[in-house]
Amino acid sequence: MLDYQATLDYIAEAVEPGFGKGKVADYIPALAEVPARKFGMAIQLASGERFSTGDAHEPFSIQSISKLFVLELAMSHFGDMVWTRVGKEPSGDRFNSMIKLEMEHGVPRNPFINPGALATLDLLMSLKGDAKHRIRNFLRYLAMNDKVDVDDVVMRSELGHASLNRAMAHLMKGYGNIHMDVEDLLETYCFQCAMAMSCEDLALAGLPLATGGYTEMHDSAVLSAAQAKRINAVMLTCGMYDSVGSFAYRVGLPAKSGVGGGILAVVPGTMSVAVWAPELDQFGNSYVGTMALEMFTKLTRTGIF
Amino acid sequence: MLDYQATLDYIAEAVEPGFGKGKVADYIPALAEVPARKFGMAIQLASGERFSTGDAHEPFSIQSISKLFVLELAMSHFGDMVWTRVGKEPSGDRFNSMIKLEMEHGVPRNPFINPGALATLDLLMSLKGDAKHRIRNFLRYLAMNDKVDVDDVVMRSELGHASLNRAMAHLMKGYGNIHMDVEDLLETYCFQCAMAMSCEDLALAGLPLATGGYTEMHDSAVLSAAQAKRINAVMLTCGMYDSVGSFAYRVGLPAKSGVGGGILAVVPGTMSVAVWAPELDQFGNSYVGTMALEMFTKLTRTGIF
Amino acid sequence: MLDYQATLDYIAEAVEPGFGKGKVADYIPALAEVPARKFGMAIQLASGERFSTGDAHEPFSIQSISKLFVLELAMSHFGDMVWTRVGKEPSGDRFNSMIKLEMEHGVPRNPFINPGALATLDLLMSLKGDAKHRIRNFLRYLAMNDKVDVDDVVMRSELGHASLNRAMAHLMKGYGNIHMDVEDLLETYCFQCAMAMSCEDLALAGLPLATGGYTEMHDSAVLSAAQAKRINAVMLTCGMYDSVGSFAYRVGLPAKSGVGGGILAVVPGTMSVAVWAPELDQFGNSYVGTMALEMFTKLTRTGIF
Amino acid sequence: MLDYQATLDYIAEAVEPGFGKGKVADYIPALAEVPARKFGMAIQLASGERFSTGDAHEPFSIQSISKLFVLELAMSHFGDMVWTRVGKEPSGDRFNSMIKLEMEHGVPRNPFINPGALATLDLLMSLKGDAKHRIRNFLRYLAMNDKVDVDDVVMRSELGHASLNRAMAHLMKGYGNIHMDVEDLLETYCFQCAMAMSCEDLALAGLPLATGGYTEMHDSAVLSAAQAKRINAVMLTCGMYDSVGSFAYRVGLPAKSGVGGGILAVVPGTMSVAVWAPELDQFGNSYVGTMALEMFTKLTRTGIF
Repeated sequence: MLDYQATLDYIAEAVEPGFGKGKVADYIPALAEVPARKFGMAIQLASGERFSTGDAHEPFSIQSISKLFVLELAMSHFGDMVWTRVGKEPSGDRFNSMIKLEMEHGVPRNPFINPGALATLDLLMSLKGDAKHRIRNFLRYLAMNDKVDVDDVVMRSELGHASLNRAMAHLMKGYGNIHMDVEDLLETYCFQCAMAMSCEDLALAGLPLATGGYTEMHDSAVLSAAQAKRINAVMLTCGMYDSVGSFAYRVGLPAKSGVGGGILAVVPGTMSVAVWAPELDQFGNSYVGTMALEMFTKLTRTGIF
Repeated sequence: MLDYQATLDYIAEAVEPGFGKGKVADYIPALAEVPARKFGMAIQLASGERFSTGDAHEPFSIQSISKLFVLELAMSHFGDMVWTRVGKEPSGDRFNSMIKLEMEHGVPRNPFINPGALATLDLLMSLKGDAKHRIRNFLRYLAMNDKVDVDDVVMRSELGHASLNRAMAHLMKGYGNIHMDVEDLLETYCFQCAMAMSCEDLALAGLPLATGGYTEMHDSAVLSAAQAKRINAVMLTCGMYDSVGSFAYRVGLPAKSGVGGGILAVVPGTMSVAVWAPELDQFGNSYVGTMALEMFTKLTRTGIF
Repeated sequence: MLDYQATLDYIAEAVEPGFGKGKVADYIPALAEVPARKFGMAIQLASGERFSTGDAHEPFSIQSISKLFVLELAMSHFGDMVWTRVGKEPSGDRFNSMIKLEMEHGVPRNPFINPGALATLDLLMSLKGDAKHRIRNFLRYLAMNDKVDVDDVVMRSELGHASLNRAMAHLMKGYGNIHMDVEDLLETYCFQCAMAMSCEDLALAGLPLATGGYTEMHDSAVLSAAQAKRINAVMLTCGMYDSVGSFAYRVGLPAKSGVGGGILAVVPGTMSVAVWAPELDQFGNSYVGTMALEMFTKLTRTGIF
Repeated sequence: MLDYQATLDYIAEAVEPGFGKGKVADYIPALAEVPARKFGMAIQLASGERFSTGDAHEPFSIQSISKLFVLELAMSHFGDMVWTRVGKEPSGDRFNSMIKLEMEHGVPRNPFINPGALATLDLLMSLKGDAKHRIRNFLRYLAMNDKVDVDDVVMRSELGHASLNRAMAHLMKGYGNIHMDVEDLLETYCFQCAMAMSCEDLALAGLPLATGGYTEMHDSAVLSAAQAKRINAVMLTCGMYDSVGSFAYRVGLPAKSGVGGGILAVVPGTMSVAVWAPELDQFGNSYVGTMALEMFTKLTRTGIF
């Protein structure tokens, strides 16, 4: 049987040459200050066992990985109605997605590009109650960790640099695809992006996607089995910005990345894997994190293809 | 010598078959209520003589024609610095201009498309004092009519339907090309669009463009001769939305139209002409107004080509 | 153990309501004459067992499914050098792909859109010998059926309606990404698209992709295990035109479709599945074929997510 | 009265600082060999008087200026039917025009971008007889110079680098907007572009556009007065690539440029002006030629605005 701990420790050393090849996100000041040489990785098995290495216990800004969890919340409340507000096709754009958003009359291509995440969150906010509490509570429940919380400094920093997201939200509002107040929406969006979680938190939070929506650790099913499969499909085709094809080719797992340097990947039926390394490649995905996942699926033969 | 009064009266009858072929603007409720069958036309000669026909004395919403006057104000204060904030090339887009705005990193193609007008106004608002007063005073001075004023109902209606303009403003702010508060900018923009003027007002207000910036009627030069020529050039290549080529082909005059159904045209050296008929063609220009101007330049041989 | 024969026969009946909802391809006359109500399905297990139903023995025009086999040939000869000529990202375009082809300077987004298939074939044609023979021989070898051949009528019909493909080839030639004579390239391309194969042929031909490049039936490995996995990854993210996300969501298998109504899908590690039903959905994929595959993965729990 | 000869001689000296700021066209080898420091300028008055300076007698490759003359030929034979094959709006694209050509289903935006010139020529070629002879004869007639002829070296060089034009022609053929054989069309197109004329030739050839289609020098009217005016309008809005607005702003004359470094401009009612200086600005227009025309309209007050 495979020694997962040895595998993770091996990878933590083997990725060393990858440092310095990417660039820490600098589009908001608070993110630019994160040390570049961090590396953490954790796996969470369906059996409950967890393995980790490096800085896997250290919380970082999950950024766009939050889109995955907000999609789960939206699907659990609204089911396939979500897809009346957002598509599920890759955008195929190096250019900022506003171009396609306009051509397609305010319906974003998928829930993992910014306008799609805004539309998904807008739908979630139509529920009674404070969406921020709902999101934080859901992440705490998934990670089984009540210390999961927002990083206020990051959140304020994002709100102060949100012009492009604000533009997209108003464009969609013009097309009737945003119903909430745009400023409330943006504040909640910055809140979800600024949530801080560790690799260990994320790996546990991602497990239900690997196990048909239900785990032995959580009290109740998070999603139906069909929903879990479908979210994995959307992750594989849309989860890695304009690099989904290369990522599928190299790693072969459904995954969602964030500009904080985190990637959460799912091995259907078996486990979830979280990795963190802040330097990003040209597409906005963690350079070292992608390396680590590529090694992992090669060594463990867990790629889905 | 040509009998201008007879010419205008002839045109007022001859355009009759054109009614019902266009459509009154309905993108904001207050504009949709304007009666479709209005027709007014006025010419203002450099000599001071004015001729008019039909509803030429009745104020209507000048809408995008205001972009011309705000450009004049901006050029008179900032000269060619204006062109660091906005280009002077036609956009060539049937699609909404946000696509090109993004591709060209927040610098609008020209001051007569919405984002270009917003950037021009943003520059004007950097001056001390209330930009709304400045604009209203300028229009009153140009039209020599202190009753020129904003239509509050239209202004409120526009502000309530400004999502796309708001999106463009935030996009430009994201690229560093809007400096003012976006809500202040939009309110001022809706103010300028909602100014109400008659054909007679507009014809007089446009005269300085025909006469090298200086007229015998106004106290002082509005623009330099070079500036007047250049604004005419920008009008000819960019003033009629995605129909500039057809308009130049049919009418052959620099002109600026508004979705209120007005068109202000300039015969360099000689006179300015204003026409109003609310029904618009597919490009957003007055259907009957364009007919009337085509007849006018044919009958008077005043086309510049 | 699952009764595959019963499953296929069940599906053949259950898809009945789907007929008449799509439209037979009519962009070339010869394809438009195919009867709409055909349905065939075949699965080929790694063990050598084969099951089929309906018209699974009847040859049809494989069209774009040929892109998959030409990619295999190119990768087996040139390895990763293929990716210097073509990308591996979804194009995300409802619009014809020439737009992105130009923006990205003649390098097509992936080998499964037309310009990408042309670039891949152009590379293959740089080998000595007749590329048409090579392709036909490869298909006969994969299908273990020496009767596999081109449909001359379809080929001529395609060559007579190839203006858009010719335009793309010349555009790429202008950017230095096509080296062969364009007319030779187009003729070879129409040849590969006009190959006729049955579902049984296709299922056997697709098996090496499910089994790491090697099967017990074929004499020698077609691809390396890594290449087989990677081609599956490219299929999943790019194989179904602008519907890859929806197809992954509904079916959850790597697959390649053709406008002849065929779809070839791969269950990694287990089997390959071919289906044929000529009526297409709005994206150019078989309407009934997609239904059949969705039922199949639900009933057999073979989706990869 | 203005001393035209002195004005031209003054300009020939005053443009000196402009040399070295542009770049000779190098997209075909034969054009790249033209000496950079050439300068010629000629004006042709309606009265028959001609003035010139510098290298105004030396033939150069007229390139895209030929589009103007082919448009004249097409309009004289087909009248407004021309506009069923090509639009008359600026394209507004820095990007190569194939993008918009595809979005607008094979109808080019105007006759002065490459696909528009191809569609115009395609229409002309539907007439009986050899289109090349027709074009050459027309240019000889307009220039009153039987030595006007094609430069075979340039023509062959262009034909060998015509992939992008070939792509556009096939794209339009795919949309039904090209009827001739594409290779015949391209050869004729390269023929028209490779015609060599001097500034003196061009100035005389352009005079009918300034004088309502009729001149005292030519035997018969070339165009109707309305057609001449309209072609001037199309030139002003579309004749200078993606720099029409800036050119109108600086020079204020209808004009057509070519990558050989020539510009032909029209002063309606008065004269035509031709200038030649091979170095081009970033938009493909003669850098020094534009400078010279700007000086000319300032000194002679002949701008139309």
